[in-house]
Amino acid sequence: MKIYGDTNSGNCLKVKWVCDRLGLPYSWVDVDTMQRETRTTPFLKLNPAGQVPTVEFDDGRTLAQSNAIIRYLARGSDLIPDDAFAAAKMDEWLFWEQYSHEPYIAVCRFQMVYLGKPASDLDTDKIKGGYAALARMEHQLAATRFLVGDGLSLADVSLLAYTRVAHEGGFHLDGYASIRRWIGEAERALNLPPAG
Amino acid sequence: MKIYGDTNSGNCLKVKWVCDRLGLPYSWVDVDTMQRETRTTPFLKLNPAGQVPTVEFDDGRTLAQSNAIIRYLARGSDLIPDDAFAAAKMDEWLFWEQYSHEPYIAVCRFQMVYLGKPASDLDTDKIKGGYAALARMEHQLAATRFLVGDGLSLADVSLLAYTRVAHEGGFHLDGYASIRRWIGEAERALNLPPAG
Repeated sequence: MKIYGDTNSGNCLKVKWVCDRLGLPYSWVDVDTMQRETRTTPFLKLNPAGQVPTVEFDDGRTLAQSNAIIRYLARGSDLIPDDAFAAAKMDEWLFWEQYSHEPYIAVCRFQMVYLGKPASDLDTDKIKGGYAALARMEHQLAATRFLVGDGLSLADVSLLAYTRVAHEGGFHLDGYASIRRWIGEAERALNLPPAG
Repeated sequence: MKIYGDTNSGNCLKVKWVCDRLGLPYSWVDVDTMQRETRTTPFLKLNPAGQVPTVEFDDGRTLAQSNAIIRYLARGSDLIPDDAFAAAKMDEWLFWEQYSHEPYIAVCRFQMVYLGKPASDLDTDKIKGGYAALARMEHQLAATRFLVGDGLSLADVSLLAYTRVAHEGGFHLDGYASIRRWIGEAERALNLPPAG
């Protein structure tokens, strides 16, 4: 399997982390999104949506969308709860991540780190949305060890990707003790060095 | 099961359509998002994210995020492909819908229909993103009858919700023959009257 990805992208790292955790073999193909390498004709054949991550299996089949990819790769593993309702709560977090978290926290980080925008120039609605997302996570993580109960799941993998680097987008986690506790636990569970 | 939803919201209608198609009993509880009924204390107890649709099962458990809800309700039905890879392609569409389709097409429609904005005042990036999403769908639907092969799946249910009313957001489907063909087929499969 080939993972087409950009190591600066949390969405791409999710796929790497799941493969590493589950011992799935892969080769990583660097795609530089800033150089528009996702818009080339060969890349658009792999993924007509022109987005990374995209994975290509040995038989030539391809799959895109970070959360769809990790859901497929982790099927049957302990990263997806056996119980159907618990798996549905995991899915709730995965969809929420793409709609209510990534577009705020990852986008602010992108603008600051890759476009060089100062924090003072960020869109206030983006900042407000980011803190609303953090509040939602804090509420859950004050009650449970991981996002779906006591065990690490794909919900944690997915939300960790941009939450652990939220400070790079100007977000302060000082008031979010449960999130900070969870980042450490999730990083250790995934054998990642601390990002903060 | 109670579905808390707003009938003006395509995200909420997805849940209704899946229940109707599968014969799952439910009661519909109208929640007026324009009146901020998703921000009341009782509603935030059901869903701390303050979003519809939210479903409440008879045992009091709750689930949010339209695509997570329909994925749970439709488990074991013909709306989710048996083949794991085909199900992953369905998931790819579900995540793509929330990130690359809904924020453009549904948001333009919301601004025109509910905020009364004329089409000429819409954000050009939103319009561009909407047409990019339509092009991605047309590319697929020129090759396959439904989004994941020959059979209706949750990918179609999910994408139908806002694509069938895209014209209300100022989008013209004249150049998208395969999408128009698919809307008709998907509406018939779901026993919906034509929206256009």
